[in-house]
Amino acid sequence: MQSALYDALAARLGPKGVAADPQTLAPHLEEWRGRHHGRTPFMVMPASTDEVAFVVRACADAGAAITPQGGNTGLVGGQIPDGEVLLSLKRMNAIRAVDAVDDALIAEAGVVLSAVHEASARADRLFPLSLASQGSATIGGLISTNAGGVHVVRYGMMRDLVLGIEAVLPNGDIFHGLKSLRKDNTGYDLKQLFIGAEGTLGVVTAAALKLFPRPRAHAVACCAVERAEDAIALLHFIKSETGALAAFEIMNRESRAMTVRNVGRRDPFPDAAYVALIECEAAGEDGLRPVLERALSAAISENLAQDAVIAQSEREAQDFWALREDISAGHKPEGEQISSDVSVPVSKVPAYLAEAETAVRAVLPGARIVAFGHAGDGNLHYTVAEARKGSGAAFPRERLNEAVHDIAVRLGGSISAEHGIGVARRSDFERYKDAQSIALMRAVKTAIDPRNIMNPRVLLG
Amino acid sequence: MQSALYDALAARLGPKGVAADPQTLAPHLEEWRGRHHGRTPFMVMPASTDEVAFVVRACADAGAAITPQGGNTGLVGGQIPDGEVLLSLKRMNAIRAVDAVDDALIAEAGVVLSAVHEASARADRLFPLSLASQGSATIGGLISTNAGGVHVVRYGMMRDLVLGIEAVLPNGDIFHGLKSLRKDNTGYDLKQLFIGAEGTLGVVTAAALKLFPRPRAHAVACCAVERAEDAIALLHFIKSETGALAAFEIMNRESRAMTVRNVGRRDPFPDAAYVALIECEAAGEDGLRPVLERALSAAISENLAQDAVIAQSEREAQDFWALREDISAGHKPEGEQISSDVSVPVSKVPAYLAEAETAVRAVLPGARIVAFGHAGDGNLHYTVAEARKGSGAAFPRERLNEAVHDIAVRLGGSISAEHGIGVARRSDFERYKDAQSIALMRAVKTAIDPRNIMNPRVLLG
Repeated sequence: MQSALYDALAARLGPKGVAADPQTLAPHLEEWRGRHHGRTPFMVMPASTDEVAFVVRACADAGAAITPQGGNTGLVGGQIPDGEVLLSLKRMNAIRAVDAVDDALIAEAGVVLSAVHEASARADRLFPLSLASQGSATIGGLISTNAGGVHVVRYGMMRDLVLGIEAVLPNGDIFHGLKSLRKDNTGYDLKQLFIGAEGTLGVVTAAALKLFPRPRAHAVACCAVERAEDAIALLHFIKSETGALAAFEIMNRESRAMTVRNVGRRDPFPDAAYVALIECEAAGEDGLRPVLERALSAAISENLAQDAVIAQSEREAQDFWALREDISAGHKPEGEQISSDVSVPVSKVPAYLAEAETAVRAVLPGARIVAFGHAGDGNLHYTVAEARKGSGAAFPRERLNEAVHDIAVRLGGSISAEHGIGVARRSDFERYKDAQSIALMRAVKTAIDPRNIMNPRVLLG
Repeated sequence: MQSALYDALAARLGPKGVAADPQTLAPHLEEWRGRHHGRTPFMVMPASTDEVAFVVRACADAGAAITPQGGNTGLVGGQIPDGEVLLSLKRMNAIRAVDAVDDALIAEAGVVLSAVHEASARADRLFPLSLASQGSATIGGLISTNAGGVHVVRYGMMRDLVLGIEAVLPNGDIFHGLKSLRKDNTGYDLKQLFIGAEGTLGVVTAAALKLFPRPRAHAVACCAVERAEDAIALLHFIKSETGALAAFEIMNRESRAMTVRNVGRRDPFPDAAYVALIECEAAGEDGLRPVLERALSAAISENLAQDAVIAQSEREAQDFWALREDISAGHKPEGEQISSDVSVPVSKVPAYLAEAETAVRAVLPGARIVAFGHAGDGNLHYTVAEARKGSGAAFPRERLNEAVHDIAVRLGGSISAEHGIGVARRSDFERYKDAQSIALMRAVKTAIDPRNIMNPRVLLG
């Protein structure tokens, strides 16, 4: 059966479109951090929407499930097959159009995010989604996981940046929703179904993305902050006073210390309980830096921050950002740990940090808490590491996970702010998501994919 | 049957919660422009989410269909019952919470938009959705129709302004999605189902809305523009140069002349083919006006505009806006006419205006064309009036409608940018929407509302 399917697909897609040798498959079956390992009868690499439609229809007819894959940068295993046919979108990598007047760019699913950034910049426009894996992550995957990143506080998540979608449905039909319209109220907004669906409702093949005027002025600052309450008050103050806030990240002392130690980054305020990393941007050259300086001075005199430094060069701005971006690399070598991707309403961030610390220490008194992330969106990557690397002491992974997630949910938050569910968060999803929502999701899934062809182990499982 | 249902609902909701007398029902059965007249066995006015759930469950059990109604300001008849039970949300009018740090406001469905504006302003925040009917339109209706208005170019449509939704499903269950989170990737984003669904998938009972820092500076300008191409080039230039564009409307000469004549408004540039109305805003007091002045001077020297005037007072800014807002009142007394709500990609606005004029004049040589609207979003309210009021000549309504819509669709546009489908655009919807999309919508509708209880004549019909 699989062999007949392979032959049919190979006949249509040609030798560049199919692969079954272990060497070619290997990098597609391994999650980049090594946390998920997969298997597949074969991989298909269609080069056009019609070829994707052919693949999906053939698989559906053969009863073979499909796992779509973009840049293989997902963090919850949703892109790794476990027996499904692996559908790589990497050959669909054309930018079909860039229009600065429409403020729209049409990219195929396999286009890498950094290529979208470059094409936008060439048209003097900005595509604002920005995250660590932007050199590998693809548009199809970013849409399918509703990616977030560091500029959500100003521009929203991927869902907010999509004008139109072209997708192949689970029966092989093509959904033609690739419009660059700002307004279209002709019925249900079907493109929303595919955004954040983790490949369970179809295969995104292309998208029309929102562009913005390219800001000509940037200013990046680090602030030393003693209390989480002050960090959130600072966020509110800077957002309101400047109207120009584009990123607001926090890093607790442990997160920076590990990054300094293990990656060699510089921490401008090593003694501060928190460092807030602030980025502002504006259309025009003049005025942004004085506005930010004034706001930071006022914040310091109000005791929202103890000290602040504004980057004096592009190089210094990059150094500030490197401290933040290397936190993951910074704590990776520190032994046993659990990581998370929680969110709470922004005003609840201080309560979260206080309550989570108490709960974590009740489970594991000597735990090292690495708390950092997108505080401007209420999104923390809250990581708990064992007291000492290689201590050999028992590491109560499950109980720590529960402690971290219970408090997020109790504060009206989410157990997966931007990474999605995939397979890694399936049990958390079933534990924390209300039954009503799960039932509604299943109703939608059954309506669109009645034969459960699309990424069937992921999300709803 | 209806009588038993009425008795059961009256017993639960009390005398304030039900009405069947013609005098009370009358204003709810008449569309405000008199274009749709309805009928209903009775109206229910639940005062809480639990009461809404009771009503929907009771109606579903009795097989009685429901039409939800907010402020009765809809323009396509979706809120007017024709035999359905009328469910008015007007008693659910509490603002449950305003949080300036979360930048979130929780309002029940019956809260009027202007009340949300006022509550936001009291917290020094902005809720940016703004449209002519804001003194009557309610949050539930604005969500159910994915309302647009004049600030979409900066803040997006209602869909972009909703953080969470509470809704009653067609079986009477309550969907608890009333979160104020900026990020939550735990499965399908179910709230999207209810936004723009025109009451066909459930009853929105409350929503968490996004707030923004309240801009302290505003600048409003009118520009005289000779060609539609120049208007769009001006839009692009002002958007890019200022980074502060909050509204960009255009009005052709006919639209302004009728408004001057019939409403008594002042037109700053009566001879101009188009007037572009521009609003900019910024967080801080200083700098906005000089930035706009500089941009407009540059635009004039580039021949994108012939002349421009910046409002020197709040009063003058209001006068500029009044010319735009009274255009509907301006052409209403001008005899037979068709109106539309088309959108095209922004860059296609000039092509639309040229091609539509040719097509309209081919159908009705002396037609007067009233072209105005949200050019910044590619959304035009393109109206065609008979050559002379009361001429008695045949007015080829259907052929004009087709001409106006055919061209929008041919240019990749929409036949209903912001008003929705309701009943008024049902035949256009079936004519222009692709079969694939309609099939997908029906699949979703059947999955969520298998008994077709919710607003069954509307949208999918």
